[in-house]
Amino acid sequence: MSVPASFSVPERILMGPGPSHVPATVLGALARPTIGHLDPEFLALMDQVRDMLRGVFQTQNQCTLPMSGTGSAGMETCLVNLVEPGDRVLVGVNGVFGTRLAEVARRAGAEVTVAEGEWGRALDPAALEKAAAGRKYQLVCVVHAETSTGVLQPIEPIRQLADRLGALLVADTVTSLGGVPVQLDARGIDASYSGTQKCLSSPPGFSPVSFSPRAVAKLEARKTPVQSWYLDLSLLLKYWGQERVYHHTAPINSLYGLHESLRLALAEGLEARFERHRKHAAALAAGLSALGLELLVPAAERLPPLTLVSVPRGIDEAKVRKYLLEEFSLEIGGGLGKFKGNAWRIGLMGASSTRRNVSLCLTALGQALAAQGHQASVSEALAAAAAV
Amino acid sequence: MSVPASFSVPERILMGPGPSHVPATVLGALARPTIGHLDPEFLALMDQVRDMLRGVFQTQNQCTLPMSGTGSAGMETCLVNLVEPGDRVLVGVNGVFGTRLAEVARRAGAEVTVAEGEWGRALDPAALEKAAAGRKYQLVCVVHAETSTGVLQPIEPIRQLADRLGALLVADTVTSLGGVPVQLDARGIDASYSGTQKCLSSPPGFSPVSFSPRAVAKLEARKTPVQSWYLDLSLLLKYWGQERVYHHTAPINSLYGLHESLRLALAEGLEARFERHRKHAAALAAGLSALGLELLVPAAERLPPLTLVSVPRGIDEAKVRKYLLEEFSLEIGGGLGKFKGNAWRIGLMGASSTRRNVSLCLTALGQALAAQGHQASVSEALAAAAAV
Repeated sequence: MSVPASFSVPERILMGPGPSHVPATVLGALARPTIGHLDPEFLALMDQVRDMLRGVFQTQNQCTLPMSGTGSAGMETCLVNLVEPGDRVLVGVNGVFGTRLAEVARRAGAEVTVAEGEWGRALDPAALEKAAAGRKYQLVCVVHAETSTGVLQPIEPIRQLADRLGALLVADTVTSLGGVPVQLDARGIDASYSGTQKCLSSPPGFSPVSFSPRAVAKLEARKTPVQSWYLDLSLLLKYWGQERVYHHTAPINSLYGLHESLRLALAEGLEARFERHRKHAAALAAGLSALGLELLVPAAERLPPLTLVSVPRGIDEAKVRKYLLEEFSLEIGGGLGKFKGNAWRIGLMGASSTRRNVSLCLTALGQALAAQGHQASVSEALAAAAAV
Repeated sequence: MSVPASFSVPERILMGPGPSHVPATVLGALARPTIGHLDPEFLALMDQVRDMLRGVFQTQNQCTLPMSGTGSAGMETCLVNLVEPGDRVLVGVNGVFGTRLAEVARRAGAEVTVAEGEWGRALDPAALEKAAAGRKYQLVCVVHAETSTGVLQPIEPIRQLADRLGALLVADTVTSLGGVPVQLDARGIDASYSGTQKCLSSPPGFSPVSFSPRAVAKLEARKTPVQSWYLDLSLLLKYWGQERVYHHTAPINSLYGLHESLRLALAEGLEARFERHRKHAAALAAGLSALGLELLVPAAERLPPLTLVSVPRGIDEAKVRKYLLEEFSLEIGGGLGKFKGNAWRIGLMGASSTRRNVSLCLTALGQALAAQGHQASVSEALAAAAAV
């Protein structure tokens, strides 16, 4: 066969739903020499990564580790380890990732109850309670940060509901970890999974997962084996723990990158990082409104790292994204699920959450809209953003 | 929490059971800027990677793609997609990875028959046929290249047996792909999975998988959903195919590395690459014998990329590996499973398979043995290797 040439990739401004911008020091870390996955130097790195993950998850959970797969592998990890066939699982669904949680739970053998919520709005705990219909549940699952809609879910009332149902609480923190507080311990989240390519600004490839002692106890009390060998935490904890029992070969260079990105997050300080995400999201929102664009999530329920924007009538949304990519090498996301074709998703995650990116995105979007005959003043948008 | 310093890693000579040496151009590829997983430039790269994987797998299988996980995720992919609850699966077990195949098949709901073979020897097709006891099977699974023992399994007789049993044939090619011929099409292998960190010399993180049209037909005829959402090939083919339906976020930078490593493999030429692996393995074997060490696999059944060496009586095997690591920054592997504590595994995989590494390993091993009072002439070992 003919061998393709060595490729080159364009330098993009990444303002979609992930991946976010990967800083140069993280890219540099990826390129360090590969060493063995049982090398003493690598084992020391693994321990540091686990410690730093506890830091960003805001937890003391011993069972905290990066799974060797992407965010969806982390979702599946939580469910296959915690679900035994016939367990009752209540899932709040207000977006693509809630839908996925329900599907993965079913495939794990759960008896799933779906509480449908409105896409683009936070879940109403009362609706979940109604769907539960007085039954006891083993698990309640919600998405803390819905990447398909840009909604941030308040966890406290869901925790209270889970207590009433006798359930453990599982929360998807893929697009919140490192960008908004997740506070696993303070909020009583029993199991959570995330991704590395959102607010942590590492390339995709790992899913950080954390289980509370109660979740570990459920795992240890299982009567049936975990259906996935690859995602079986009882085996993985022996590899990531003191025993170092070989399970699989961890993605070594990717872990170098994760180490560096966690270092950057913690060195910035979590509170400062959350404030940065909040501030730039508010500036973006003000600028988008000044461009005459409608934000689809009420202000109080917005997820700072990801903003859902309605496509104005008469605008070809795919053409706008193409314009941004070609003229500005700027990526924003299209809508997903119910918002496919009628919304954009603009990410300000991790290293992508900067003042410069807010200004650039408003400028580019204003020009793209003008190119389709939509009146919009870039100057006013920039002024509105600057005033935040 | 205190933030750890940016880490540094030692430069090792990697001659264990994987990872192998990752060339500088592959490391450099990892560090290229991250772009979106649905970026047109990334989609083009995905297509090239799939084409090149078909090249190294020696197949025309349309269903050929890298799974976003390590080799064990690939094993699980083959089994969860091809097994429906109650399917009969015959597994030949002559090492750790055969044992794992049986375990993963059980967790996928299969009725598993294990045909035990001798560790360190190829499987005897007659023993598999005897274990089958006249029943029909849906799958026959064997390990083409047993990473725990360094045995290369002849596939042809296993294929003939699978035909008699009415079964599809699954073969683990983790440590053969890119180092010895796998010839999926010529040998009639219906499903195979591999790793990137062995003879392809990319960092770990992907598992290349390939399904024949017959295997795809079995997948498409399923009556039950695949138990793993993350590994469900019917969904993944829509992401990796022309439809580009979002499934998960592929590990972008890792794919850059895989692209470059596949390019290097194909540019070298598969036949030249196989010959290089064969030649250096033969030189190593001659040198090890000259050092007075016993190879545990008969010459005709040896896997060139990995050599199993008996630890001489009176030698502390872990101390030898520590000596190599500390004095030579050279990694070899310990034994696994039945060979734990009594064998070493020496890898000459991908970019690690060089004349220089053969000489260095013989030198280092000779000195390590001498340090424990074992008489061994490095000069004779080097001469024996050079004579091959």
